Amino acid sequence: MAMAPHPASEFPDFSHLPHVVIIGGGFAGIATARGLANKDVRVTIVDKHNFHTFLPLLYQVATAMLEPAEVAYPIRTIFGKAKNIGFRHAKVREVDHARSVVVLEDESEMAFDHLVVATGATAAFFGIPGASRFAMPLYSLADARRLRNRLLISLEEADASADTSPISLNFVIVGGGPTGVETSGALSELIRTVIKRDGLRIDPSRVRVMLVDMAPRLLTPFPEKASEYAFKELEKMGVEIEFGRSVVEVEERAIRFADGERLKVAAVIWAAGVTASGTLAHDLQVTSGPGGRARVMTDLRLVESENVWAVGDAAAVPLDESTFCPQLAPVAMQSGRHCAEQILRVVKGEPTKPFRYRNKGIMATIGRHAAIAKLPGGTVVKGTAGWLAWLSLHLWYLIGFRNRLRVMINWTWRYFDWPSGPRLIVADAETAE
Amino acid sequence: MAMAPHPASEFPDFSHLPHVVIIGGGFAGIATARGLANKDVRVTIVDKHNFHTFLPLLYQVATAMLEPAEVAYPIRTIFGKAKNIGFRHAKVREVDHARSVVVLEDESEMAFDHLVVATGATAAFFGIPGASRFAMPLYSLADARRLRNRLLISLEEADASADTSPISLNFVIVGGGPTGVETSGALSELIRTVIKRDGLRIDPSRVRVMLVDMAPRLLTPFPEKASEYAFKELEKMGVEIEFGRSVVEVEERAIRFADGERLKVAAVIWAAGVTASGTLAHDLQVTSGPGGRARVMTDLRLVESENVWAVGDAAAVPLDESTFCPQLAPVAMQSGRHCAEQILRVVKGEPTKPFRYRNKGIMATIGRHAAIAKLPGGTVVKGTAGWLAWLSLHLWYLIGFRNRLRVMINWTWRYFDWPSGPRLIVADAETAE
Repeated sequence: MAMAPHPASEFPDFSHLPHVVIIGGGFAGIATARGLANKDVRVTIVDKHNFHTFLPLLYQVATAMLEPAEVAYPIRTIFGKAKNIGFRHAKVREVDHARSVVVLEDESEMAFDHLVVATGATAAFFGIPGASRFAMPLYSLADARRLRNRLLISLEEADASADTSPISLNFVIVGGGPTGVETSGALSELIRTVIKRDGLRIDPSRVRVMLVDMAPRLLTPFPEKASEYAFKELEKMGVEIEFGRSVVEVEERAIRFADGERLKVAAVIWAAGVTASGTLAHDLQVTSGPGGRARVMTDLRLVESENVWAVGDAAAVPLDESTFCPQLAPVAMQSGRHCAEQILRVVKGEPTKPFRYRNKGIMATIGRHAAIAKLPGGTVVKGTAGWLAWLSLHLWYLIGFRNRLRVMINWTWRYFDWPSGPRLIVADAETAE
Repeated sequence: MAMAPHPASEFPDFSHLPHVVIIGGGFAGIATARGLANKDVRVTIVDKHNFHTFLPLLYQVATAMLEPAEVAYPIRTIFGKAKNIGFRHAKVREVDHARSVVVLEDESEMAFDHLVVATGATAAFFGIPGASRFAMPLYSLADARRLRNRLLISLEEADASADTSPISLNFVIVGGGPTGVETSGALSELIRTVIKRDGLRIDPSRVRVMLVDMAPRLLTPFPEKASEYAFKELEKMGVEIEFGRSVVEVEERAIRFADGERLKVAAVIWAAGVTASGTLAHDLQVTSGPGGRARVMTDLRLVESENVWAVGDAAAVPLDESTFCPQLAPVAMQSGRHCAEQILRVVKGEPTKPFRYRNKGIMATIGRHAAIAKLPGGTVVKGTAGWLAWLSLHLWYLIGFRNRLRVMINWTWRYFDWPSGPRLIVADAETAE
């Protein structure tokens, strides 16, 4: 007995509408698609993952506080009710601008009337030998899981060595920006608590969590007193912070600094900066500007293009005549929304409007009750108030009510009973069987 | 600044106590360790995974209803408060019975006073060509994730083919026991609902979920009327059931039956039976009996052994003089508890007692509100009452209050708003980046 028949002709037919292809299901791509939902266009989001990843919380997956599914949401589910939005689970091989066609990895082609490049950013390794191979960035769900596995396996190895020759564990976080600060704080808290709670036979003095940066202070986009606050909070949590140190090489289990020191490590976590997706210029045939980002006009169309747009981290979005917007989630969301509006204008034959970034401030969290927010006016909120602001904002933007609720439950739990998170080593489950 | 010093001498020292090594952290191994917690022995659980897997719910992970962390729990966390229970994240290479030593894969050795073999069971492929390679069993978290990925990727492929030449998807479940019944029901429900909800361009008549068995009815351990009930419920859910069909070969994307039919498939799910862990006899040097299980005496010690025990699915536990206990979770738990008691008796120089299995009945779930339970007296409970019994029992045995609560929340959610589960394709996140 087959399932109830459902003829193919019943699928809604949008083939007469202009086709907008969005490459990338991150903040910018999703915001663009949301702006086009239930409008007179048909949209296909192309992504190699079938889910949207909430990047700001990846470090919590890496430190075993949240599970992958709590920071990821299937793209189809986001747009389940918008019938004009489709999804294609695929990698893009190249864009043929002359024919307005996207070529996928399986060589199938997808014609577009408008193309939105929302391919995001990846870690920048600045050509440092070994960094791209051995340092661990935090820019995808896979990155976060890899780091979590490395961390948990390292603790198991240290425990197993207790009876014979106890090993030391050094974790080096490179980069004192928000990601580095958040990750080092969470890592130090996790390790210290887990050792106690799980009864690991590891002498805590054999575990070092080090945050290194070339700059002379943490969180450079914040005012100096915020940097000092973050420094003190991290020190309280057992993080060693070293300024003015630059990395010259990363090896499989070691790091070398410019001053000659070579340190054995359990992991090097790379939070030193981002660049637009490496193959942007090559595969998508896009003129790249600062940080490998696509050069766009004020309306977010690519320079010299009629129907190709770039948004979010992949785009060098003009802030004023000489500077560009920072690579932040609010910029991605705002530029995506703007792009959607402009595409609808072009489709209707109306002129486009320039993008204006509305500064929503920046935030970083340090530990369980410590966070810093810099409001648009320049005011800095810190401590528990900052933490609550951080919490509300992140919960608000977590896509889908279900995820919000789940994360809220987990965070409440963690607040009282920390860390009882999902410390499963799953890489071996994936590969060793 | 290093973390607060914590000299190694502060680790609790149990080295004067008899050492019990338990191989395997499944139901039987955990039950054994629980029975030895805070007693005058020191215990090391050895497992290649750092987590316990709640096997009865794996099919829900495979069908994207639960997440891996909801059916898995870190072994260290289970025993966080029992200081005499340790964990070693390792694979066992072999057991040297003469020297009472376990040799691990890294060649390190672990001496034991008592050894408990709790290595469980794996899928039995009965030598059918291609089955072990291409058919997908459901016996580990990795199995469940692989199947989920295959399922979700198949749906994406079918959707992508809609415009050109729509493909058909056949899912064949081999085996009409509880696992086959549960999986086929969940799979059929999932596919039909997801196609609608996520707006997949798949004609449901192109999707078949088939359950095949050599036997003439489903759920042979249950009375015949229970089989009929399961049959009707599965048919309502769109599962095609075929009896008297035997599989002669499994290919990468096809299955061949004894009657000559060759069917292209998206996946073959293997629920045809289990055998004790394949390398039991070889690596652990254990005399194997029925189903590759270790032959034990009535007190659960291996035949002719003083200090090596076998419990759970790995052991051929005598039920009476001529038959053996079924490979079920209650047997695993009861035998583990019994084994712990007997080890403590031997340590104290007391004689051991024989194991007696107390029949707790068996259950199987079919769909959202349909389940069957056969109580010890033979009474069969079915429908919603059976489902509620199934739900309570599984929740009760899910290790850890946190997991129970999370699964309860997810199930409640699913009951009203199904399926909103975590449909992330993560294998590609793992390997493709």
